[in-house]
Amino acid sequence: MAQLSPLLAARWSPHAFNPIAELTDAEVASLLEAARWAPSHGNSQPWRFLLGRRDDEAYKRILTNVSPADQRWAGRASALLLAAHVTADAVGAPLTYAAYDLGQAVAHLTVQATSLRLHVRQTAAFDEAGLRADLDLPPEVHPHVVVAIGRLGDPYSLPEDLRVREVGLRQRRPVAELMLG
Amino acid sequence: MAQLSPLLAARWSPHAFNPIAELTDAEVASLLEAARWAPSHGNSQPWRFLLGRRDDEAYKRILTNVSPADQRWAGRASALLLAAHVTADAVGAPLTYAAYDLGQAVAHLTVQATSLRLHVRQTAAFDEAGLRADLDLPPEVHPHVVVAIGRLGDPYSLPEDLRVREVGLRQRRPVAELMLG
Repeated sequence: MAQLSPLLAARWSPHAFNPIAELTDAEVASLLEAARWAPSHGNSQPWRFLLGRRDDEAYKRILTNVSPADQRWAGRASALLLAAHVTADAVGAPLTYAAYDLGQAVAHLTVQATSLRLHVRQTAAFDEAGLRADLDLPPEVHPHVVVAIGRLGDPYSLPEDLRVREVGLRQRRPVAELMLG
Repeated sequence: MAQLSPLLAARWSPHAFNPIAELTDAEVASLLEAARWAPSHGNSQPWRFLLGRRDDEAYKRILTNVSPADQRWAGRASALLLAAHVTADAVGAPLTYAAYDLGQAVAHLTVQATSLRLHVRQTAAFDEAGLRADLDLPPEVHPHVVVAIGRLGDPYSLPEDLRVREVGLRQRRPVAELMLG
């Protein structure tokens, strides 16, 4: 198997977050700094974020709009980050790479999280209209994913169905299936 | 300024690639392995790749479809990777997070490149119809970006306009401008 950087090899998306761990202000700052310096099409930087930390109002408003199934794990995370993008620049020109660029920014944030011994799991199962209303999002901002961030917790504290997934082997297609031509 | 992992802090997108450096097979394998293990919506892994290495047929077919302005730097890279995505799964269900997930995969590849002392610069300025024809791409595959990969070269070998950009300071919006709410 090809050698991976330890920061990539160690990354995975857990369900079992430690339900009492908190992020330091320095950790939060470095996560956002990592996202900020991601590359983007024409340096358009279309990403926008809203961060909730456990027990604050933003966290509650994000979590309440996540699907009940995903609240079971997202509600244990130390922080919930709403990752969104704008789809037009300041003069109204469409930003057709906004979703792609947001993916790059969240990946950079995830690598930084790994370097801090934090873990990340994302979900797209949320009520967009509810999020828009509860967070008073401007119309040009499109919520894309909710990123749960925290420290690893006890997998045996999870509900049965999540525990089975938590301890299973991770699966990916072989590289040959990804290659064209 | 917030502390970043060295693999993120060292990343930037140069124009000046070393025009004779080549990638080893192990380097290529690790770049694709990094992309392969990226997270994706429902583990859909919608990313598809076509890799050209300098002087091979795939490299020539990718490069000839890049805009003339970007050929000036892309044509010095050791490898050109066409990064594409499929937009439906095997049973025809739409993959609405395909572009976002491809962004994550290319970001992971870029972090791996940095760990190998390689650099990456992306362009979306290409002739899609030409690429489709020259590379015989299936209709369900959507080319998204061309990723140039190589080792750093001499910035003073660049044309004047690129040299000015190459040695300028990188700019990003402050974090406060990225935060909602």
